[in-house]
Amino acid sequence: MSSERIVVLAHEKFPDEAKTALGVMRYGDQTIEAVLDRDRAGDRVADHDASLPDAPIVDSFEEALAAAEGGVDALYIGIAPIGGGFDETWRDDVRAAIAAGCDVVSGLHYFLNEDEEFVELAAEHGVELRDVRKPPEDLGVATGHSADVDADVVLTVGTDCSVGKMTASLEIVEAARERGIDAAFVPTGQTGIMIAGWGNPIDRVISDFTAGAVEDLILEKGDEHDLLVVEGQGTIIHPAYSAVTCGILHGSMADGLVLCHAAGREAIHGYESFELPPFSDYVDLYEDLAEPVHETEVVAGAVNTKDVDDDDEAASIVDAFGEEVDVPAADPVRHGADRIVDGIVDGVLEE
Amino acid sequence: MSSERIVVLAHEKFPDEAKTALGVMRYGDQTIEAVLDRDRAGDRVADHDASLPDAPIVDSFEEALAAAEGGVDALYIGIAPIGGGFDETWRDDVRAAIAAGCDVVSGLHYFLNEDEEFVELAAEHGVELRDVRKPPEDLGVATGHSADVDADVVLTVGTDCSVGKMTASLEIVEAARERGIDAAFVPTGQTGIMIAGWGNPIDRVISDFTAGAVEDLILEKGDEHDLLVVEGQGTIIHPAYSAVTCGILHGSMADGLVLCHAAGREAIHGYESFELPPFSDYVDLYEDLAEPVHETEVVAGAVNTKDVDDDDEAASIVDAFGEEVDVPAADPVRHGADRIVDGIVDGVLEE
Repeated sequence: MSSERIVVLAHEKFPDEAKTALGVMRYGDQTIEAVLDRDRAGDRVADHDASLPDAPIVDSFEEALAAAEGGVDALYIGIAPIGGGFDETWRDDVRAAIAAGCDVVSGLHYFLNEDEEFVELAAEHGVELRDVRKPPEDLGVATGHSADVDADVVLTVGTDCSVGKMTASLEIVEAARERGIDAAFVPTGQTGIMIAGWGNPIDRVISDFTAGAVEDLILEKGDEHDLLVVEGQGTIIHPAYSAVTCGILHGSMADGLVLCHAAGREAIHGYESFELPPFSDYVDLYEDLAEPVHETEVVAGAVNTKDVDDDDEAASIVDAFGEEVDVPAADPVRHGADRIVDGIVDGVLEE
Repeated sequence: MSSERIVVLAHEKFPDEAKTALGVMRYGDQTIEAVLDRDRAGDRVADHDASLPDAPIVDSFEEALAAAEGGVDALYIGIAPIGGGFDETWRDDVRAAIAAGCDVVSGLHYFLNEDEEFVELAAEHGVELRDVRKPPEDLGVATGHSADVDADVVLTVGTDCSVGKMTASLEIVEAARERGIDAAFVPTGQTGIMIAGWGNPIDRVISDFTAGAVEDLILEKGDEHDLLVVEGQGTIIHPAYSAVTCGILHGSMADGLVLCHAAGREAIHGYESFELPPFSDYVDLYEDLAEPVHETEVVAGAVNTKDVDDDDEAASIVDAFGEEVDVPAADPVRHGADRIVDGIVDGVLEE
């Protein structure tokens, strides 16, 4: 299967506020034909971030199409305004993409499939509108059989939201593959789904089906690989989102957990009156809560040190985390995920 | 406000398999004009269960209407087939109720508001179709402010599904009121909502809004009462439903928990390979998981002994449970909820 040739919409936000765009560009196997950002048109991606695949930055989808020699297969919406709405200044680009026979992929709360104009245009041009935040309609309750698959299952769990669980999961899969382990990423959120091209947006399913929606993913891929790395969501102590975390913990029936943390975080993001407890409390909570459904343990740690400039300081933060949790730890972006995979091999694959 | 005069549909299931009908009849403040059960037409409710308000059992809504001297305000669907579908043999009764100007109240998965014939008829006759399992559309994420209300909040939590959490909650409210405590029931499931006439069906909301949907209920009533008793759902160790339980635990920010158990239950209902852990493990799990959001403790126990015939045996099961959990315990149906309220007074109201 040849790689999908895509244009990534990131108007006025590239690169720093275009989290979804960066995720797809960094981890997806799509070919990036162009980035749309009207504020940076004329630049190249490499001017802003040399670690990303290079591509031109242009003003509009039509320019992107003109520049792409081999054609374009899809337009990806790579940014999300607060609230997840559709920014009407993007309408011309989406229209042009559909008219050019391209699919449009979106993780917005606003569903392209409920936009009358886009639906009509898409039907006319025979393209697909892929709203990755819209759960499939055939979900049901978990049966409790995730542990029956051939693969070992590892789940990234967090001390908070937005600590880098998706990134850690993707880096673990890459590092494991480099070591010859047949590993696969199991996406549970919109960016992960856009990167991988499959998955269930667990935070949008009916609460009774939370574990079931994860189980579906495990059963779908669990006999095709040796290791599944499930993207976790939220944190088990979140005042608003813990239900999602709990459903993923029990639905995945993980054999091992990777505890993820963002260096410097001391309170729940956006809920600052809720302080983070000691790391060892998280270990006990996740392990004790998982045990009656499927015994598991924290086997590694991933610390996101992107806000720490000094390399030595970052390394010592990671070391301190690893000592406190008593597992191998790394910042998977800064240091690579090799030490994390060590923990997974020792704690899960060779158990 | 005068009591709603209702007819309860329970065809072929009354009383033993009509759980919703029994709940509404036992705990609701509606006036029961008749029960529909074509298999028992001609009997009276008292012939089957003398503890329920007596009423005639009739064959059809039209007969019920003819028998009701003061008229009828609403038809309640008091049974649910496996899967929660609508049984077409009920259509004539629903039609007749609407035509007679009655609201229809249903907790089925099948929404009356999506049935074209009922929607048209209801519009024509100016009546309301109340699908209590359909969540409101304006739900959002929790803000973490449930603990700010004036009332103390108690949540019933379970060792499993279907152990009597709703019944325990309702009995606690009754017993507390008899003692002069201004207590209110907070319903989170369809039967509870039908009984109380308000509430959110937490198991049907989008998983991200689980805690938020509970918080909405607490904020709505929390300044009007001294004690809120929140109906729990599922169990925190359920392979399929734990997400709902976790969201209610954190969303309610309960000041005290009542641990509910069904005597004789040794494995998760319908998931028999998952054994129940010791009661003390539940206490630790619920308390430890709640703590980072809002500290709480198990202050009483409710043991459902309906499957135990012998009174002495039931009493000793309850005593053993109370000793193991180290709280006052009772079967709230068999013994009344007074001892449970003792635990709530000592552990929550007088703290």
